[in-house]
Amino acid sequence: MSDFYVSKLAVVGVGLIGGSFALALKQAGLVGEVVGIGRGRANLETACERGIIDSFTHSLVEGVAEADVVFLATPVRTLARVAAEALPYMKKGAVLTDGGSVKAEVVAAIEPLLPEGVHFVPGHPVAGTERSGAEAAFATLYRGRRCILTPTSRTDRGALELIRQLWRAAGSEVVDMTPEKHDHILAAISHLPHMVAYALVNAVVGCGDQDEDILSYSAGGFRDFTRIASSDPTMWRDIALSNREALLEVIGIFEKSLATVKSDIAAGNADALFDFFQRSKQRRDAIV
Amino acid sequence: MSDFYVSKLAVVGVGLIGGSFALALKQAGLVGEVVGIGRGRANLETACERGIIDSFTHSLVEGVAEADVVFLATPVRTLARVAAEALPYMKKGAVLTDGGSVKAEVVAAIEPLLPEGVHFVPGHPVAGTERSGAEAAFATLYRGRRCILTPTSRTDRGALELIRQLWRAAGSEVVDMTPEKHDHILAAISHLPHMVAYALVNAVVGCGDQDEDILSYSAGGFRDFTRIASSDPTMWRDIALSNREALLEVIGIFEKSLATVKSDIAAGNADALFDFFQRSKQRRDAIV
Ligand SMILES: NC(=O)c1ccc[n+]([C@@H]2O[C@H](COP(=O)([O-])OP(=O)(O)OC[C@H]3O[C@@H](n4cnc5c(N)ncnc54)[C@H](OP(=O)(O)O)[C@@H]3O)[C@@H](O)[C@H]2O)c1
Ligand SMILES: NC(=O)c1ccc[n+]([C@@H]2O[C@H](COP(=O)([O-])OP(=O)(O)OC[C@H]3O[C@@H](n4cnc5c(N)ncnc54)[C@H](OP(=O)(O)O)[C@@H]3O)[C@@H](O)[C@H]2O)c1
Repeated sequence: MSDFYVSKLAVVGVGLIGGSFALALKQAGLVGEVVGIGRGRANLETACERGIIDSFTHSLVEGVAEADVVFLATPVRTLARVAAEALPYMKKGAVLTDGGSVKAEVVAAIEPLLPEGVHFVPGHPVAGTERSGAEAAFATLYRGRRCILTPTSRTDRGALELIRQLWRAAGSEVVDMTPEKHDHILAAISHLPHMVAYALVNAVVGCGDQDEDILSYSAGGFRDFTRIASSDPTMWRDIALSNREALLEVIGIFEKSLATVKSDIAAGNADALFDFFQRSKQRRDAIV
Repeated sequence: MSDFYVSKLAVVGVGLIGGSFALALKQAGLVGEVVGIGRGRANLETACERGIIDSFTHSLVEGVAEADVVFLATPVRTLARVAAEALPYMKKGAVLTDGGSVKAEVVAAIEPLLPEGVHFVPGHPVAGTERSGAEAAFATLYRGRRCILTPTSRTDRGALELIRQLWRAAGSEVVDMTPEKHDHILAAISHLPHMVAYALVNAVVGCGDQDEDILSYSAGGFRDFTRIASSDPTMWRDIALSNREALLEVIGIFEKSLATVKSDIAAGNADALFDFFQRSKQRRDAIV
């Protein structure tokens, strides 16, 4: 058996991210028992029926007590509160980790709460779909994707290695970076596109006459483009607020970029437009 | 044989749109001979090899002379020039039509040029991919998509009916509206999203450090989102300039929409952000 076997895993928030993590580790044979912790009953029952968890409880205290690893996968702005409640009841040597989409704020809030002998490894699997809940979870979500871990000088190296191996077992390539660098990169490649997609859908609907459904004319392009605009509003409210500074900065950069296009259209600068579109095409083609 | 059989079809610009139209009509058995007209040799040879056209010429005059229907499928800003060159050589009773993505400017430029007995039916199939050229054409591109025709008071009703039936035979649902309404709707659901995607890719690349490839971190969402940012720069330069007014207006609406998100993030307005994201999700979910 691997050095990294987890006898008891507790997952707080058995949704897409938490549920898929449990499924992946079960499939890899790296986990014994999985307990799910959540608020509502229906989602946890679904998780049981789908074999994601073996049992569940609504009590954090009860759920984390015997766990070797506790994985937090609730919305970003709830993570520190959940951690504060769970940490005093975790056993010595146990590892707390999370899958939150923003890191600096979460790390700053959780690290000061750590009891002696309980470790915290902040993480973020860069994978997902626009669907939510235990129903949406699947074992291969993380396969071939990156998982970013953001250890600090306070992070226990053994705990870090354990969590790294679990994500590898789930199929991910694990990358380490600082929480700040993580938030900067994710603001640009993930948080900004989501804000833009939400703003675009609301703007386009605002362009139509009252009595016509302008969206009914949309061809394939628009639908793909706005798929991410149907992502969970709670999750994205939390991300936007937790990564406020980095996000405002990249929104500013995007606004300038769009303003360039706009003024080139207004001025009829054909060559400048061609170059702008060409540059974008080349950059995008380079990543696919 | 159908009333709408076309003995000779001329396609000017045998790319994705022109080539797919020819293929669809051939498959429907509604067309006899197809002649392709273009500038370069390689693309027209590809079109011949793929059975899209039966012959080709670089001479507009030669290509359109015997045609019953001439389909223009070159970039929007070239349409009027091509039409001006072709129209004097078209035979009486023949129909000129096009697939350009913008209509008001094109209609205004072409209608005054029509010789007695030659008809013009402006159209736009709302279908496409980000690929270009005869290589990208396929017979089912238009199946299940809308095709918008924008007849005016000057449009011949028989010619309109013929073109309508050809698009139906290609599998499209045909909708009529004014050129202005077309341009307004397309500005919102197609042209704006393309400008936003181009601006987003260029902005995100601008966010990275010199020495790191920020795009390599992008998960599935970003790739889908920016697929349309690899569309043809010439085509989109032309569209942006031809639909300038409507496009500037919707860019303005989008900018306001994004500014709302931005100021709610800056102010920490959690409820406003949730409502904004929720509204977008509901609207987007309603169209899929
Ligand atoms: N979706 C993605 O693309 C993605 C990717 C990477 C990381 N993440 C991060 O992963 C975390 C979970 O996201 P997800 O997509 O898995 O969401 P999800 O499917 O909605 O699951 C979140 C779970 O957390 C619980 N929860 C929801 N609101 C809560 C609250 N206010 N307090 C306590 N628990 C709450 C819910 O379970 P109960 O109802 O049973 O309490 C829910 O099943 C978030 O931090 C998100 O930022 C998401
Ligand atoms: N792609 C879409 O999603 C889409 C959807 C609906 C409508 N449209 C419209 O359909 C038209 C064609 O688009 P497409 O996607 O088929 O583009 P495409 O695949 O690039 O084909 C356009 C063809 O036009 C010719 N052409 C290019 N530049 C030209 C120029 N400056 N002067 C004369 N001919 C030129 C080229 O053939 P040669 O090199 O042989 O001359 C080329 O094969 C455009 O008006 C576009 O707005 C496009």
